[in-house]
Amino acid sequence: MGTYRIAVLPGDGVGKEVTSGAVEVLQAIASRFHHQFIFKYGLIGGEAIDRKGTPLPDETLHMCRQSDAVLLGAVGGPKWDKNPPHLRPEKGLLAIRKEMNLFANLRPVKVYPSLADSSPLKAHIIREADLLIVRELTGGLYFGKPSGRRVENGEEAAIDTLLYKREEIKRILKTAFELARKRRKKVTSVDKANVLESSRMWREIAEEVACDYPDVELEHMLVDNAAMQLIRNPKQFDVLVTENMFGDILSDEASMLTGSLGMLPSASLSTTGPSLYEPIHGSAPDLAGQNKANPIATILSAAMMLRLSFGLNKEADAIEKAVQQVLTSGYRTVDVAKKGQHVVSTKDMVDEIRATI
Amino acid sequence: MGTYRIAVLPGDGVGKEVTSGAVEVLQAIASRFHHQFIFKYGLIGGEAIDRKGTPLPDETLHMCRQSDAVLLGAVGGPKWDKNPPHLRPEKGLLAIRKEMNLFANLRPVKVYPSLADSSPLKAHIIREADLLIVRELTGGLYFGKPSGRRVENGEEAAIDTLLYKREEIKRILKTAFELARKRRKKVTSVDKANVLESSRMWREIAEEVACDYPDVELEHMLVDNAAMQLIRNPKQFDVLVTENMFGDILSDEASMLTGSLGMLPSASLSTTGPSLYEPIHGSAPDLAGQNKANPIATILSAAMMLRLSFGLNKEADAIEKAVQQVLTSGYRTVDVAKKGQHVVSTKDMVDEIRATI
Ligand SMILES: CC(C)[C@H](C(=O)O)[C@@H](O)C(=O)O
Ligand SMILES: CC(C)[C@H](C(=O)O)[C@@H](O)C(=O)O
Repeated sequence: MGTYRIAVLPGDGVGKEVTSGAVEVLQAIASRFHHQFIFKYGLIGGEAIDRKGTPLPDETLHMCRQSDAVLLGAVGGPKWDKNPPHLRPEKGLLAIRKEMNLFANLRPVKVYPSLADSSPLKAHIIREADLLIVRELTGGLYFGKPSGRRVENGEEAAIDTLLYKREEIKRILKTAFELARKRRKKVTSVDKANVLESSRMWREIAEEVACDYPDVELEHMLVDNAAMQLIRNPKQFDVLVTENMFGDILSDEASMLTGSLGMLPSASLSTTGPSLYEPIHGSAPDLAGQNKANPIATILSAAMMLRLSFGLNKEADAIEKAVQQVLTSGYRTVDVAKKGQHVVSTKDMVDEIRATI
Repeated sequence: MGTYRIAVLPGDGVGKEVTSGAVEVLQAIASRFHHQFIFKYGLIGGEAIDRKGTPLPDETLHMCRQSDAVLLGAVGGPKWDKNPPHLRPEKGLLAIRKEMNLFANLRPVKVYPSLADSSPLKAHIIREADLLIVRELTGGLYFGKPSGRRVENGEEAAIDTLLYKREEIKRILKTAFELARKRRKKVTSVDKANVLESSRMWREIAEEVACDYPDVELEHMLVDNAAMQLIRNPKQFDVLVTENMFGDILSDEASMLTGSLGMLPSASLSTTGPSLYEPIHGSAPDLAGQNKANPIATILSAAMMLRLSFGLNKEADAIEKAVQQVLTSGYRTVDVAKKGQHVVSTKDMVDEIRATI
């Protein structure tokens, strides 16, 4: 019975197909629960470069700021790979994260029993794994200055800067502890404190923040060890919090617990404006336009939107249950299908989920 | 029939047990093949801090420089975790890498059929996987300046610097291509060129170097995708080359293909002086002094030393075959043992391997 404005940014490649699937699912929710979702569409990424000369046009940013939440598909493709840095699709994604202050990227990794087979990991390793990766999204190597080329003693050098300010680290750690409180009350803070100064500051601040959460256990883990432990024994993790680049690497790695990137949603939260929801997979140019992409990551991202931005828990549950049910019934897009299973198209998968809602 | 001077740096924790095991195996090789190995011992890491006030004493460095190769155990432990950065055990490791110009870290990952069971990955995923990670070891975030704290607009900030010079990138890529030539002729160069300037320079130089190796295939892969592909389909890789921090993370992750860090050797090569050989595992303080550590990684590191520093291929083969045979006979240290298998101590494992030689 509420009205919500949703900015939809399909982006490139499979982005269009998967966001259109998620919009259809949201419409099914609207009619079942009597809400009104107002969708407005904007350009981002490669198509924005082609049509507006920039990966994040001002009108897109303006529209997103006027909305209650943003749903994004994916950006990028070989067409723009040789472009100069400021005219790359990814720059649009990085710019919207920074401009909208989307500092906390939540990537839940939950293993569906019906999909345990499609993981490269043994069933007993992943069974019941359920972790939440909290990735810092607006700092670190992604945004630190200087970043560029220069000449050092007559030789060309390239430089990037890993910079974090105290408040940036504090707010992401607080977010992780708050989330852990609603879960199994354990935070694993991942860093490289034996080498990096930024990690040593990160670890100090983690200790400080932990004092305000005596009910939550804090554990530190080095990033190389974390990359190993995620596969060795993923069940040891509840909330894993880390800086931007480590989070990028570890969350893609963790996606393999579920067997496919095509299953994993994400939320990028701001405390000063609307939040953004997107699948963690990319634009998969080789699959685009073929009605084959897995829409589930984007549909589950929409469910996260309902829960985290609009407080519509029942509605979010309805989506998540429908996804689970459709998977249990054996429907699979090609990325997660095993021999003998019922392979369906993007559209069919969306229709099944809608019908179940 | 040759004489070789080997500097042995046991370091901390299990470092002592595993290096002493490798020395015994080298002695067995010496007597079977009529060589003379002259072992000299030096301090590094925590013990060096305790006894000499520095993690890399000058006499250690001098001794290493006078040797034909260096065999290192591992450094670090909780005792020194709260020390200031320049008095940490890891600093000794980083300093010896830099001082001896050990820019190319080779980490072969080979799955032993007899151990396929102890991997968390499904058998068909890892069966016959055989890759070589070539990690740049003396540049990037590990050594870039500035690295420290400062105040930015009245707020504390920490900064690390990812810096690479053209020649540093070129020599590691050349090393990777040379190694690929002797293997399956494929190089996967891992970077984050969609975000980092240093990665964009890396990719450019990879393209340039590739021109000199028309017989070797070059493929670029983003680091987040590589973290996923290593688990999804490790058999796609032959030589994987990457910068220091990415290499640290990906090689620990890749160790899970074999089921245990305790199996993986490494070589750190210099072109200007002796090279260094060490297991990729750490000092495992919780296992230290209990005669439980897996000595195989260090023993296989000694085999790499024979092959790469001394050109003793037959001798290296003899070690590698002995290890394989002992594993096939069912002997396991506790880290890789499954129910019902013959669990042996560090010493027993060393004795079995010596006896087999
Ligand atoms: C496309 C790329 C810039 C992006 C990132 O590295 O953050 C992506 O990999 C992600 O994880 O959202
Ligand atoms: C101990 C540490 C400094 C070291 C590194 O990060 O290089 C270790 O993890 C390694 O991989 O050899």
